[in-house]
Amino acid sequence: MNVTIVGCGSVGAGWAALFAGVGGHRVRAWDPSPDVRGAFTDKVTRAREQLSELGHSTDAEVIVCERIEEALWGADWVQENAPEKLELKTQIYQHVESAVTHDCIIASSTSSFTWSQLGAGLKHGERFVIAHAFNPPHLVPVVELFCPNRGALDRAVKFFTELGRVPVCMKKEAAGHIGNRLAAALWREAVHLVAEGIADVEDIDKVLIHGPALRWSVMGAHLGYHIGGGEGGIDHYLRHTGPSQERRWATLGNPQLTAEVCEKIAAGVHNEVGDRDIAELERQRDRQLMEIVMLRDVYPTLVRK
Amino acid sequence: MNVTIVGCGSVGAGWAALFAGVGGHRVRAWDPSPDVRGAFTDKVTRAREQLSELGHSTDAEVIVCERIEEALWGADWVQENAPEKLELKTQIYQHVESAVTHDCIIASSTSSFTWSQLGAGLKHGERFVIAHAFNPPHLVPVVELFCPNRGALDRAVKFFTELGRVPVCMKKEAAGHIGNRLAAALWREAVHLVAEGIADVEDIDKVLIHGPALRWSVMGAHLGYHIGGGEGGIDHYLRHTGPSQERRWATLGNPQLTAEVCEKIAAGVHNEVGDRDIAELERQRDRQLMEIVMLRDVYPTLVRK
Repeated sequence: MNVTIVGCGSVGAGWAALFAGVGGHRVRAWDPSPDVRGAFTDKVTRAREQLSELGHSTDAEVIVCERIEEALWGADWVQENAPEKLELKTQIYQHVESAVTHDCIIASSTSSFTWSQLGAGLKHGERFVIAHAFNPPHLVPVVELFCPNRGALDRAVKFFTELGRVPVCMKKEAAGHIGNRLAAALWREAVHLVAEGIADVEDIDKVLIHGPALRWSVMGAHLGYHIGGGEGGIDHYLRHTGPSQERRWATLGNPQLTAEVCEKIAAGVHNEVGDRDIAELERQRDRQLMEIVMLRDVYPTLVRK
Repeated sequence: MNVTIVGCGSVGAGWAALFAGVGGHRVRAWDPSPDVRGAFTDKVTRAREQLSELGHSTDAEVIVCERIEEALWGADWVQENAPEKLELKTQIYQHVESAVTHDCIIASSTSSFTWSQLGAGLKHGERFVIAHAFNPPHLVPVVELFCPNRGALDRAVKFFTELGRVPVCMKKEAAGHIGNRLAAALWREAVHLVAEGIADVEDIDKVLIHGPALRWSVMGAHLGYHIGGGEGGIDHYLRHTGPSQERRWATLGNPQLTAEVCEKIAAGVHNEVGDRDIAELERQRDRQLMEIVMLRDVYPTLVRK
């Protein structure tokens, strides 16, 4: 397939590496910024090296184009990864629609907007798909999909399944989809804990990494409660612990990101980061993710792909 | 050390395996139920086999006692893992205090109660410590600690550090400590998504396992936002994405665990579980956890122990 990347930041680079390195697709990419375009090839190369370590290696080319028309020519799939600005994305879709055929899928990596918000202005909205992944998209497997048109959705499921991804189709659209809504809920409480002086940033991250997130990464939240219910499983859990969960919900915080709270959070993060720069943290993150991805091929998680 | 386990369910068994198998402590255990006592030794043996695979093997004995006095005799550390019932736990502490010396630490595995709630009735509350871990405690490393008395807290940090755990000291007490508050916040939104028909149980668990929880298990929530902020890090993130997080918080759900919602959740869990029983799910969970624990010894997470 001919796949076009619109928006060449880290998400675009991860997608490009995946589409070419795993799917063998011909990838052309465009970004309005010459600097971003200039940095793209190196990013894609690093990501493809990681995929190659995971056993995925092709000679499919990734070409950076100076003009968007050139990138869009003959596209079967367009993956848009522009900044989260509604007007900007809408403008891009107009441009894309005028350059591609009617059966080209236009997919958005938006992390927050809904299909209705983004697809409203399209002439052929029936081929517009929400396809959101978590950074880096070539290593974190889930892709959240939404499209009211069954045909386009089926094509998207097939496309991402063949790329070894875990497509999850939302039944209704929601701002932030599934994962980022769960993340927002969790982080709201984390900010509350910091704001109230119950725990600092590093301790919250430590608890997550070495506690709940470790468990969730293996079995999700619901299977955790199911096992927690013992022989009676989730039914026992809901009957006996459900009421106490409702009571706990009532005690959760509703913080605001005031200047003071933001300062506390930023100071906490700088403290936990120490002298590591973003590139070093990304390297460490990617190494861990790759090792876990390889591990899961041998020992599957409780909910399979 | 002489360590006494009060409460021989799965948490008690995991602790016993850890205390004996990693710490080399002499462990005696008691539970009021003969059935639970009867099943204990097998559970501990399985957990010690897992620890042995992880490189921890000792010949320290774990003895199950029929009478609590026998279990408490000469104890340096008592780990209470009774059901989450305030009155029951309070009664146990009275019993324990009458049988141990003043410098014996009494630690509670409570997942929800605070130090003030539990410690109020103790004669020597200064040696009472909240020490909460996530099931299974011999494989999930974090231990949430709270005790207003610095001396006892220091002893607890030392005790769990020597067991290879990740102790995290709360600055103030809070119902549900840190991890279960984050978990409650996340699950509230998960229940909302199910109740509103946006996603079903299995899809939510899939998204967690193959998306946010995978990332959190490597780098926590705050380091994720720090990397997400690009070169500007967390400061950039808070400035530019903070306001949209606050807007998203306002859209999060506030569901109730009605009979209808509970039925939807239970049906979803049974669907994702299929014909696997709890024991099989536990085996699969433990295998994954063990592999990740071994992995982290070689490739550390972004926030180390």
